[in-house]
Amino acid sequence: MIEIEYDGTNYSGWQIQPNARSVQEEIMKALKKITNEEIKLNAAGRTDAGVHAKGQVANFYLNASIPTNRIVPALNSNLAQDITVLNAKEVPLDFHARYSAESKKYLYNIYNSSTRSSLFRNYSYHVTNKLSISKMENAAKKLIGTHDFKAFMSSGSSVQDTVRTIYTIKIDKHNNNICLSFHGNGFLYNMVRIIVGTLVEIGTDKRPIEDIEQILLSKDRRKAGHTAPPQGLILEKVYYPS
Amino acid sequence: MIEIEYDGTNYSGWQIQPNARSVQEEIMKALKKITNEEIKLNAAGRTDAGVHAKGQVANFYLNASIPTNRIVPALNSNLAQDITVLNAKEVPLDFHARYSAESKKYLYNIYNSSTRSSLFRNYSYHVTNKLSISKMENAAKKLIGTHDFKAFMSSGSSVQDTVRTIYTIKIDKHNNNICLSFHGNGFLYNMVRIIVGTLVEIGTDKRPIEDIEQILLSKDRRKAGHTAPPQGLILEKVYYPS
Repeated sequence: MIEIEYDGTNYSGWQIQPNARSVQEEIMKALKKITNEEIKLNAAGRTDAGVHAKGQVANFYLNASIPTNRIVPALNSNLAQDITVLNAKEVPLDFHARYSAESKKYLYNIYNSSTRSSLFRNYSYHVTNKLSISKMENAAKKLIGTHDFKAFMSSGSSVQDTVRTIYTIKIDKHNNNICLSFHGNGFLYNMVRIIVGTLVEIGTDKRPIEDIEQILLSKDRRKAGHTAPPQGLILEKVYYPS
Repeated sequence: MIEIEYDGTNYSGWQIQPNARSVQEEIMKALKKITNEEIKLNAAGRTDAGVHAKGQVANFYLNASIPTNRIVPALNSNLAQDITVLNAKEVPLDFHARYSAESKKYLYNIYNSSTRSSLFRNYSYHVTNKLSISKMENAAKKLIGTHDFKAFMSSGSSVQDTVRTIYTIKIDKHNNNICLSFHGNGFLYNMVRIIVGTLVEIGTDKRPIEDIEQILLSKDRRKAGHTAPPQGLILEKVYYPS
C-alpha cells in the first residue's frame, strides 16, 4: 500500500475516466514506467474533482520485484509535483485500501470574509456572510454518533446501507479560516460536503439548529443543505486496524 | 491606499517589467478599466517572483471621482482570482505606501519532511534534513534589535543605510510545517530569505549558532547562509502610524 498526498486542483478526481486527467491514472502511468506492468489501484476514497488528499491510501499487486523502500522515490520522480507518494509498505494479500479501512478523517476549510482570498482560493469555501461558530458546533453535536445519513448522500451512489458513525466533529477558527474536521467509520457520497453546506446555512441563520433532527429523520436529500464546493475538502487520514 | 492579497506563484513579482506578468501591471490594467486613467502605484514592498502577500499596501492618485467603497468590488471584478484587493481608503496626499510605513511583518513557511508536499509546494521551502527549532530560536534571538544587516542583503540594492531593527522573530511548528514570523522597522533586499537560509543551516547543524555574531560584524554577504527560495515568503502586514 502507498499513502498519497495530492493537490486536486488540476485533476478530475481520483477515478480514471476518459478525456480527463485523474490522480489514479497518473500513478498508474508512473507505476508502468518503473515496473512495465499495467497495475490497477484500489483507493480508500474516490475523491471528486478539486478535492485534495493528505493521506489517501491505495493498494496494488506487483509482479516486479522492487524493494519497498525504492517505491517512494521511484514513483515521485515520475509524478508531477502536485502528487506525492509519502510512504509505501507491504501488506497482506487480503488487504484492500477501502474495505480494510476502519475509519477516516476529512478536513473541510472555509474562508469566512466579505472579500475572497487569493491564497486560499483553491483550498477553501468562500463564505461571505459571518458564520456563528457556536451555532455550527451545536448543530454538529447532533450529528455525532450512529445515524442513517441517507439525507446527507448525493444521488448517484449505489450504496444500500446508509448508516454511519461519526466519532467527532471539531471546528477551529483562526482569523478568517475555519477548519472543520470529521472523524467517522465511513462517509457516504458527498456526505462531508452536504453536512458542511447544512452547517453553513445554520451558521448564517438561514435555518435553525433544530433542522438537523428533521433532516436525519427524513432520509431525504432535498431536506438537507447545499453541497459545499469540492476545493475545501481534504481526505486527511485513513485508519486501519493495527 | 489599497491593501492587497496575492498568490505570487504565477507572477514575475510586484514590479512592472517587460515581457513578464507582474502584480503591479495587473492592478494598473484593472484601474485603467474602471477609470480610463494610466495610474502609477507605489507599493510598500517590491516582492520578488513567487513571493506572496496577505497585506501588501499600495497608494495612487485618482482624478476620476469614484466613491472609495466602490473601488474594492470594481477592482476585484477586473482582477484574476489570484490577486484580491482587501480594502481601500482615502489617505492624505503626502502618504507614500513605502516611505510612510512604520514597520512590516513577513512570514516564512518551511515544510520539514523527507518527502515533498504537494499541497504546500507553492507556499513553502522544502527542507529534508530535520531542523532543530531550539537552535533556530537561539540563533534568531541574536538578530533581534538594531544591527547593521548588510551581510543579510543581496547585491543589486542601492540602499546606503543598512541598519535595521528587528522587533520579534517567532518560530511556530505544527507537524511538518514551520512558520517563522519577522516583525521589524524595515527589511533589506532579500533580508528575510537570507536570514531563513542561515537559520536553516544552523538548524541542520551545518554551522554553529555563534556564526550569527560573526556574520553581522563581517557586513559581508558571503559570510551569511544561502537565500531561501521565494515561495516560502509572505508579506503579511504593513503598519503605519495611526
